[in-house]
Amino acid sequence: MCPNGKKRKGDEGAEDTTNNDHLVTSDDQNHPANLIPSLCAKFWTLGWVTGTGGGASIRDDDLVYIAPSGVQKELMKASDLYVLALSQQTDLKNRVYLRSPPGGRPSQCTPLFLAAFTKRGAGCCIHTHSHWAVLVTLLLEAQGPGQDKVFEINNIEQIKGFGRGFQKQGNLDYHDTLRIPVIENTSHEEDLTEFLEEAMDKYPDTYAVLVRRHGVYVWGDNVHKAKTMCESLDYLFQLAVEMKQLGLPWLSNVPKVITSSGR
Amino acid sequence: MCPNGKKRKGDEGAEDTTNNDHLVTSDDQNHPANLIPSLCAKFWTLGWVTGTGGGASIRDDDLVYIAPSGVQKELMKASDLYVLALSQQTDLKNRVYLRSPPGGRPSQCTPLFLAAFTKRGAGCCIHTHSHWAVLVTLLLEAQGPGQDKVFEINNIEQIKGFGRGFQKQGNLDYHDTLRIPVIENTSHEEDLTEFLEEAMDKYPDTYAVLVRRHGVYVWGDNVHKAKTMCESLDYLFQLAVEMKQLGLPWLSNVPKVITSSGR
Amino acid sequence: MCPNGKKRKGDEGAEDTTNNDHLVTSDDQNHPANLIPSLCAKFWTLGWVTGTGGGASIRDDDLVYIAPSGVQKELMKASDLYVLALSQQTDLKNRVYLRSPPGGRPSQCTPLFLAAFTKRGAGCCIHTHSHWAVLVTLLLEAQGPGQDKVFEINNIEQIKGFGRGFQKQGNLDYHDTLRIPVIENTSHEEDLTEFLEEAMDKYPDTYAVLVRRHGVYVWGDNVHKAKTMCESLDYLFQLAVEMKQLGLPWLSNVPKVITSSGR
Amino acid sequence: MCPNGKKRKGDEGAEDTTNNDHLVTSDDQNHPANLIPSLCAKFWTLGWVTGTGGGASIRDDDLVYIAPSGVQKELMKASDLYVLALSQQTDLKNRVYLRSPPGGRPSQCTPLFLAAFTKRGAGCCIHTHSHWAVLVTLLLEAQGPGQDKVFEINNIEQIKGFGRGFQKQGNLDYHDTLRIPVIENTSHEEDLTEFLEEAMDKYPDTYAVLVRRHGVYVWGDNVHKAKTMCESLDYLFQLAVEMKQLGLPWLSNVPKVITSSGR
Repeated sequence: MCPNGKKRKGDEGAEDTTNNDHLVTSDDQNHPANLIPSLCAKFWTLGWVTGTGGGASIRDDDLVYIAPSGVQKELMKASDLYVLALSQQTDLKNRVYLRSPPGGRPSQCTPLFLAAFTKRGAGCCIHTHSHWAVLVTLLLEAQGPGQDKVFEINNIEQIKGFGRGFQKQGNLDYHDTLRIPVIENTSHEEDLTEFLEEAMDKYPDTYAVLVRRHGVYVWGDNVHKAKTMCESLDYLFQLAVEMKQLGLPWLSNVPKVITSSGR
Repeated sequence: MCPNGKKRKGDEGAEDTTNNDHLVTSDDQNHPANLIPSLCAKFWTLGWVTGTGGGASIRDDDLVYIAPSGVQKELMKASDLYVLALSQQTDLKNRVYLRSPPGGRPSQCTPLFLAAFTKRGAGCCIHTHSHWAVLVTLLLEAQGPGQDKVFEINNIEQIKGFGRGFQKQGNLDYHDTLRIPVIENTSHEEDLTEFLEEAMDKYPDTYAVLVRRHGVYVWGDNVHKAKTMCESLDYLFQLAVEMKQLGLPWLSNVPKVITSSGR
Repeated sequence: MCPNGKKRKGDEGAEDTTNNDHLVTSDDQNHPANLIPSLCAKFWTLGWVTGTGGGASIRDDDLVYIAPSGVQKELMKASDLYVLALSQQTDLKNRVYLRSPPGGRPSQCTPLFLAAFTKRGAGCCIHTHSHWAVLVTLLLEAQGPGQDKVFEINNIEQIKGFGRGFQKQGNLDYHDTLRIPVIENTSHEEDLTEFLEEAMDKYPDTYAVLVRRHGVYVWGDNVHKAKTMCESLDYLFQLAVEMKQLGLPWLSNVPKVITSSGR
Repeated sequence: MCPNGKKRKGDEGAEDTTNNDHLVTSDDQNHPANLIPSLCAKFWTLGWVTGTGGGASIRDDDLVYIAPSGVQKELMKASDLYVLALSQQTDLKNRVYLRSPPGGRPSQCTPLFLAAFTKRGAGCCIHTHSHWAVLVTLLLEAQGPGQDKVFEINNIEQIKGFGRGFQKQGNLDYHDTLRIPVIENTSHEEDLTEFLEEAMDKYPDTYAVLVRRHGVYVWGDNVHKAKTMCESLDYLFQLAVEMKQLGLPWLSNVPKVITSSGR
């Protein structure tokens, strides 16, 4: 689907001229360069990317498409996107781009998106500032040190929207406990990367990491999985906040129903 | 309106080839194959079918159209739908389909939809994961065993949006108590069927069944009735949660107003 | 703008045949027959007319256009509307219509809309089931008898969205107290009419009447005023519920600011 | 981009005739006369300009475009706008307009918008009646005199959406405290001007001023900055109200995370 955007030796002059605009030009609405703007516009209506916050990135084989920094997310266009080749990133702190939008600024989320792609083989990573996510991290913080590093909820049907984990088959069960680790926020978003990676190592099966007082990163094998898990998670965060307001606990001991099928 | 999709003997070969795509192909926006996607897109904006959760099915005489599993509900197309003939389902556990979308997975909600069609003659059944529905089941659960099996509310105008019950004329009165039974959730959605049917037997006049920590099933004689009752119910669930937050009881003793008409 | 739809003597036969469809046929998007559907679709997105609840009516001189009963409000079409001539309604309990939609049912709100048109000369009347309105009536009820018959709020800027009252010039001031009377709900919506009229007599300057556990009726000299006052009122109802949740009083004693203009 | 609308001597007669409609006529969707209606329609869906409340103004060099008073904000058209030249306003109480819409009323917000343009060189100013903003001012008021004049929040990522202040480079840090002053409301919106200017003098780096029981004014160097800061601020107001409901403090002492980059 995606044109090969890798640089060929001796080709730099031409690329400087064209800026590889062909990488973000397609009539296919499912092309990553078209999907990112349409997803971001949808996320804006959900309150996930308010005031240029948040972002999204899609990986197609070696090519990575990234929403830029500081753009009104509901107005983003394909021509606003950055594109890079994963295989060309020898120094993750000094990234090289195949395509940069004129006058654009790369997203500080970039190294976090790349972590999901390289450490988990993800095909899409979404970052939201959803205030439900922020409230969940604040509620955990209010529980005090030692109680604030992971969000846990079980016995809610929507939990079944999550895969069992990295390179595992199938989805979580209704009775399973969904665990989303929480990392502390840093002044510079790029500095979150090491902590995100630590959380990935400690919770190898998670598809999301909460950032205290900031938001959440969610990834998946492809756009469909990342987007629907992000939706399911936001649903659970909202539910969790409302449960807290109503004095209902997030973890419960619900017995398995005995059915005639014997399952 | 709907083309007859029943198999004729000796016709299987042709049908395997064409997959009966004509069953989901129509220019009529009120054709079930077009209505299900437009309804699901609307439900997505209401937060009822977040993250591929929930679903909907329409019955037109003997033909049943069903949203597939695992599809982003706001993006669903007519070509994603399953179609089956009610009269051909001799074994409800091993259903045969007139039309299956390429690469699709049948919805686990299917036997629950079929229960509404066969036991109640419903023309449409909707399943939502509305978090208001989930919160109502959690609030009931918190009241303790014996207090958690039915949601009851009375003296709210919106109650008049519900029919009096199966094969009965007219709608509930403002002063009537609306009762929605609650069944326990199971790991496999299909296993809910026997409990849904039990609840239908115990509450023969209900048009809806809540599923604890999961959502709600709502049906009606036709799309219009199922959809508007589902809306009215979600309104009442939201109201009920807000009433609880404000310390207001769901059941009240409101005297009838004496009017000059003497009614 | 509106064609004259009054019956001429000797014309009844022709009208029975045509059903006066010309009364609801216009290319002008500001024609009442087009405005009612577009308003109702907008109100549906606001949660005001969920599940066929609520409605709206516009008066253009002697002609009254009314949304029918039991229609999905976001799907309503001009051809669904009823039309009557005010001057022809000699018996308000047995109304005669210039135009009735085939298979339609007149709205039970009709006599309430007519009360706003005849007693207040209103040009538009809106009825919503907004749950904020319902919650306000429940919160008043919880204050006990004698404290539950009028909603009062002051010192909120949005109060300036309301006219000073029937045949009065100008709008309420920021410091003024907005008072909306509450009437008790009846089993039959038509029976509300006498109580609505009583409330209009007791509060001659109100542009709205709350109906306990039901919703609100709002009217204005024209569509613009009725719609914007309905919006302002819903804003205030929502604010009032949230203030209650936060322990903030609806009535306050805020001193006037002394400005250099000496106003 | 904008046509020069300054009056030339001897031209008044012609301008009286044409009313300078060319100033609000453009095919460019980024022309201020087109941006204001599209922004206001968007703000309406966010509940910021309910019932004709709120407004927006854009300055392009010397020309100022202003939404009129009393218009349904989601229906506003370019032809509804006022246009004036900043350089022509010798008496701020008696403003002269280059273009006035037929039958329009100038917005009472006008002198407040002009204050942002003249005192801060802003390119855009937005006024909302967001009920989150109103609730924040009410919560501050409930803290008592001396505690009610400024909203403060820190250690939330979205704070980084704000510039450091007038003529300063860069944005606030995550750990910085965002301070938004609160002024008291007056009966006449124009009378707010002197207090808004006082607040600007006292908080020279603020990009927003809350008005007690009324709403908020937000400005920025251009449309992009004003709009995204307004969004970020509304996000923070909503979060602040929800934090209060959950017993979470707005100000906290969160230690800086030590990162491997040593920042």
